[in-house]
Amino acid sequence: MIDKLIDKIKATKAPIVVGLDPMMKFVPERIKKVAFDLKGETLEGAAEAIWLFNKEIVDKIYDLIPAVKPQIAMYEQFGIPGLISFQRTVDYCKQKGLVVIGDVKRGDIGSTSVAYATAHLGKVQVGNSLCTGFGEDFATVNPYLGTDGVQPFIDVCKEEKKGIFILVKTSNASSGEFQDRLVKSEVDAENNTISERPLYELVGEKVAQWGDQFIGSNGYSYVGAVVGATYPEQGRILRQIMPKAFILVPGYGAQGASGKDLVHFFDENRLGAIVNSSRGIIAAYQNDKYKQFGSANFADAARQAVIDMVADIDQALTSVGK
Amino acid sequence: MIDKLIDKIKATKAPIVVGLDPMMKFVPERIKKVAFDLKGETLEGAAEAIWLFNKEIVDKIYDLIPAVKPQIAMYEQFGIPGLISFQRTVDYCKQKGLVVIGDVKRGDIGSTSVAYATAHLGKVQVGNSLCTGFGEDFATVNPYLGTDGVQPFIDVCKEEKKGIFILVKTSNASSGEFQDRLVKSEVDAENNTISERPLYELVGEKVAQWGDQFIGSNGYSYVGAVVGATYPEQGRILRQIMPKAFILVPGYGAQGASGKDLVHFFDENRLGAIVNSSRGIIAAYQNDKYKQFGSANFADAARQAVIDMVADIDQALTSVGK
Repeated sequence: MIDKLIDKIKATKAPIVVGLDPMMKFVPERIKKVAFDLKGETLEGAAEAIWLFNKEIVDKIYDLIPAVKPQIAMYEQFGIPGLISFQRTVDYCKQKGLVVIGDVKRGDIGSTSVAYATAHLGKVQVGNSLCTGFGEDFATVNPYLGTDGVQPFIDVCKEEKKGIFILVKTSNASSGEFQDRLVKSEVDAENNTISERPLYELVGEKVAQWGDQFIGSNGYSYVGAVVGATYPEQGRILRQIMPKAFILVPGYGAQGASGKDLVHFFDENRLGAIVNSSRGIIAAYQNDKYKQFGSANFADAARQAVIDMVADIDQALTSVGK
Repeated sequence: MIDKLIDKIKATKAPIVVGLDPMMKFVPERIKKVAFDLKGETLEGAAEAIWLFNKEIVDKIYDLIPAVKPQIAMYEQFGIPGLISFQRTVDYCKQKGLVVIGDVKRGDIGSTSVAYATAHLGKVQVGNSLCTGFGEDFATVNPYLGTDGVQPFIDVCKEEKKGIFILVKTSNASSGEFQDRLVKSEVDAENNTISERPLYELVGEKVAQWGDQFIGSNGYSYVGAVVGATYPEQGRILRQIMPKAFILVPGYGAQGASGKDLVHFFDENRLGAIVNSSRGIIAAYQNDKYKQFGSANFADAARQAVIDMVADIDQALTSVGK
């Protein structure tokens, strides 16, 4: 799947992923009216609204991009009906040929991690049948529980030819509270010194180790990492620590990062990273820059925002000779 | 909700929670037959089987225990039908008067964490209606993303009078990979020293800070912690670092810990901790000790295992004068 993702990035010349994180405040009134008329002001009505919203956006942008990243929390808040819309979104995007990264940030231990990996990337045995749960192509994974939590995902990826992105350095303001703490690492007995470095570097090293045996034909592993665009300097270091990890980069646009913050995440061939934007694309029509589209044409605004984002990254990479 | 949990622990004299983590291999053939005859060897059939399995166990043990802890991964692996069984289980246990701890280990940032907190503990606005998603009483939360990730859960808990348990030191073998790393903490300028301690202690301190303002009438906060029974010495230290945090303790039974490992988690009034057992209870009939019950009476075996677990903890606490 990492090869499919890279092939699609090359074909579209767009190292970006659109976060399908629909909040009710992004959904235009006309769509809400259709959905609520059909299903009421209920969880079912909300779920219908976000599905219709997603579909209109996907129909307008699918030819420009390699991948989408639905954030499951935005669906889960609407209970079972919301998760049915998550499933419809995953299935529809796959039909459209898009790679689907399930932003689920799951992580547990042993048989529980096996169950999560199965839910999102694998197949489950029921009697004599093999059944598929949500069936994304990639999932995001939380590493706090260590190898016990991550290994089951890697095993399922190997079996199913899928991939994961492990949280290393997240894009939020307080990510440093734990992730930036200096931890003691190796003891150098000869010089009687103990090296120390931030926790995220240690996690990055683990990601590199976990992924080392699972390299696709393009030179990148199917065990990738999440590193926030809001921390470009840390991104530069992590790019070196994890040379074969594809990096999923959140934080562009609404969270404050721009093209110039991204250049260190990419290799000389403009590969190695895929940059996410969520509300910057799907709610572009609510941004001053795109307000001329109006809420009626919210999906056209999203298309223009995709084109502008690709151009911004292209320009930034060109300016550093990549 | 922390007060309700404590009241129920006092009433049942059972500081335990039963993990409703149904795997297909635990479900007796007769239940699978009923479910598959009804819905086929499909996700729906599996979901029906685990629901019937849960219901029979809950009916047999609900009078003995204060709380259940369904592990959502075990349902999520069966996709939407599985999550419908999760919802049925949550609703049924609440009807039976049990406190429901959703073991979801969610954690993200900002609006995404708000969405997760809403999904499991809160209410979501749809038009002019307020709707409830999964509606558990407590949820487990992953702290790797820092305060940004945790605060939205605390806010929802405050609004809804619910609670959380934050992962501090998990019960698995590789939990130490990151959680045990020594991190630099405070600089003592006067003595020119820098204190250092394991990451889990730092997380524990944060849990204590986060929960400090939200203390119930029994003296415990609705911001609790998860600390594995498999690490009793760390539990002793964390009990002191987080004196007001109720501790959810996994790792008893199948994972190897027994009553004597638990004594440091409790205060002098036998409060402050609630010990989980999952397969040790729900799959007791597969254990040599309870095999005389047979698969037909799997729920009776579960009841006996609950009684034995309560006695084991009681004896251990008595032996240390608690």
